[in-house]
Amino acid sequence: MSAFAGKQQEFLFRQLLDYKSFTYTYLLADTTTNEAVIIDPVIEMVERDCQIVKDLGLNLVYAVNTHVHADHITGTGEIKKRLPTCKSMIAQISKAVADIKLKEGDVIKFGSHQLEVRSTPGHTDGCLTYVWQQQGLAFTGDAILVRGCGRTDFQQGDPSVLYDSVHNKIFSLPDNFRLFPAHDYTGQTMTTVAEERKYNPRLTKPKEHFIKIMEDLKLPYPKQIDRALPANMVCGVF
Amino acid sequence: MSAFAGKQQEFLFRQLLDYKSFTYTYLLADTTTNEAVIIDPVIEMVERDCQIVKDLGLNLVYAVNTHVHADHITGTGEIKKRLPTCKSMIAQISKAVADIKLKEGDVIKFGSHQLEVRSTPGHTDGCLTYVWQQQGLAFTGDAILVRGCGRTDFQQGDPSVLYDSVHNKIFSLPDNFRLFPAHDYTGQTMTTVAEERKYNPRLTKPKEHFIKIMEDLKLPYPKQIDRALPANMVCGVF
Repeated sequence: MSAFAGKQQEFLFRQLLDYKSFTYTYLLADTTTNEAVIIDPVIEMVERDCQIVKDLGLNLVYAVNTHVHADHITGTGEIKKRLPTCKSMIAQISKAVADIKLKEGDVIKFGSHQLEVRSTPGHTDGCLTYVWQQQGLAFTGDAILVRGCGRTDFQQGDPSVLYDSVHNKIFSLPDNFRLFPAHDYTGQTMTTVAEERKYNPRLTKPKEHFIKIMEDLKLPYPKQIDRALPANMVCGVF
Repeated sequence: MSAFAGKQQEFLFRQLLDYKSFTYTYLLADTTTNEAVIIDPVIEMVERDCQIVKDLGLNLVYAVNTHVHADHITGTGEIKKRLPTCKSMIAQISKAVADIKLKEGDVIKFGSHQLEVRSTPGHTDGCLTYVWQQQGLAFTGDAILVRGCGRTDFQQGDPSVLYDSVHNKIFSLPDNFRLFPAHDYTGQTMTTVAEERKYNPRLTKPKEHFIKIMEDLKLPYPKQIDRALPANMVCGVF
């Protein structure tokens, strides 16, 4: 198994993407025990994702969402149908259906690895950031994107809350931590705490200025929201 | 600078993508000297790529192509206009214009790092694979893709030659080496030698069977080829 992971690594990390919704899905594993976690799977890509899990000989223990997505339907329900021992996870505060409800300070364990759960509301009230301290990286969902951030005008969005989440829970990580977002529309796959602290065009501004920026965005109504939200409240499976 | 790279790393590795042509571009750097190399840049994404180079404080020394692409126009010429000290590189045998012509056994140095040049013809006669031994990975261009390979019906393509290239120059790398292709159409960002040796639906077959598969593909004429080939023979800049 370790041959699949990369040189001298006891973990596997694989970034996957859905070209339709520009969503990044992440597959993580302990390559000694083969226990694996998938973050933000997309329903249309479940067949691909399960094939990779099978090819790599992984035991998918958790299918996790960073939040209730408005732009695509989650693949967690479909994955559970195919891999019945896999448990779904989402923020307790989101009120969405899942096997395990997460809150600030919880830990997601897979083999000898673990993700620290941080509550980072503002895009939605149930947004979580998952920090993989051992590897020096975090999965930020829509809280912070590469040189951007998630919108705050739907789903209990609140720019003031988002600002505090990013500054207190993400920018407080070490400068060299890599950040892996739920989306990117410019073809960038990652960023770092240092880069966003220096170059994020919104979140480097004073809080009042940030709030004004977010209030002035006037984004179009999300195309998928009426279809995606009710589905995502129940793991993507009606 | 090292803060941008990731935890305890003296190198930077960033995968970028062009959603239009499904092309992966790679930015590599030595984070001590800041010398950087870009592999397979796309002309429409040059502004993004140069902004990242600037943000990260890198000194881009080489803009390198794995081969003369038929599906997009290279960004090397535009990059050289913006960063005049950057030198372009491509296979000597391709007969394309470039500052430095590469051949089997050459080494591309950036800081304390180096890429080993392997000749892997078959998709085109000038296809090169760049092996980063220190990091246990290789950039394979179109020679091998995730569970696939480049077509062999244009540009001096030859399935028999491609088969030997992959088996002798790529599958001979250690099992745990990660492979980063020039393209992927399924949203996968990488693979490994072990996976392709086991699961590649074409290259795991005996050679005669592989040749038959490639001859029977009957792919449509590449949409961009008449525009891309002449441009790519001169670094993308007429």
